[in-house]
Amino acid sequence: PVILDFKAGDIGNTAEKYAEMAYDVLEADAVTVNAYMGFDAVQPFFRGREKCVFLLCLTSNPGSNDFQRLETKEGPLFEVVAATAIKWSAEGSCGLVVGATHPDDLPRVRSIAPDLPFLIPGVGSQGGDARTVATQATTSDGAGVLINASRSILYASSGSDFANAARCATEQLRLAIEEPLE
Amino acid sequence: PVILDFKAGDIGNTAEKYAEMAYDVLEADAVTVNAYMGFDAVQPFFRGREKCVFLLCLTSNPGSNDFQRLETKEGPLFEVVAATAIKWSAEGSCGLVVGATHPDDLPRVRSIAPDLPFLIPGVGSQGGDARTVATQATTSDGAGVLINASRSILYASSGSDFANAARCATEQLRLAIEEPLE
Repeated sequence: PVILDFKAGDIGNTAEKYAEMAYDVLEADAVTVNAYMGFDAVQPFFRGREKCVFLLCLTSNPGSNDFQRLETKEGPLFEVVAATAIKWSAEGSCGLVVGATHPDDLPRVRSIAPDLPFLIPGVGSQGGDARTVATQATTSDGAGVLINASRSILYASSGSDFANAARCATEQLRLAIEEPLE
Repeated sequence: PVILDFKAGDIGNTAEKYAEMAYDVLEADAVTVNAYMGFDAVQPFFRGREKCVFLLCLTSNPGSNDFQRLETKEGPLFEVVAATAIKWSAEGSCGLVVGATHPDDLPRVRSIAPDLPFLIPGVGSQGGDARTVATQATTSDGAGVLINASRSILYASSGSDFANAARCATEQLRLAIEEPLE
């Protein structure tokens, strides 16, 4: 599957054009969307079960603490986003972006959204641990997580062995994910 | 001034490339940024007083009520964003996107950020009133607002008189803004 991680978030008529670009031109299977602007900024990305819309929930970067953990009456903001994803799932497949750099919060988000797919950045360059993710964020049947790494694989070596180094980094990550699930 | 309204919001190394694209390639003077991901997603856009970074605060679309009005300990989320813009102004010029479709909230945001520039969409097609904005959102010296209209001007006519129709729509908006300020 191709996931277009472009963190879109704009008013409806613009979002419609972004969705066309993502799905019809680039032929992506899923997108990441910033939900700050609310439902009408997200709605154009839903296409039933055919595509998946991952809402930014608790991101992997340090600044995720600035707003995403703000306490609201319904819990921290990222939990409200998780609960909203459940609600919006009636419109089409919806998932959540939850950073591997927040291991303590993964079980909480999973409990709010027991069956939604999680897109999990933050392993590799950002320091998150794939083993922890694999055990803490999976659904009850050991599925539901997509762990992605970019820089730790792309830039595994800057020498002429870059291709093999990238392959090794990928295999290491795969083992780290699969081992605790066996 | 050229304002690139692309509502960027991504981790630091991606944000740096967006900032290069916006300022160095497209030569924009200002950008709009979604602050949900926090400071490190916004920081690369600051360039002292040379450029201006408008944070999405209370947007003009219907979905703005979904998250932006969530009550936190420090007031509704959009007010927290406004207060954060003041704090981040130490890094470079910072402004706020506040929709003309929320006339009752404009004075409140202005009181939190007395001197920041406001980028105000939502007049024209979205139904906001330019006169209200001009009187409710300006700074104490009657400045500080940038009211933008897109579709109501671009699509003022679909006939062969489109150029003149766009000019007329622009002049009407200009008068609506200027009159109450005289």
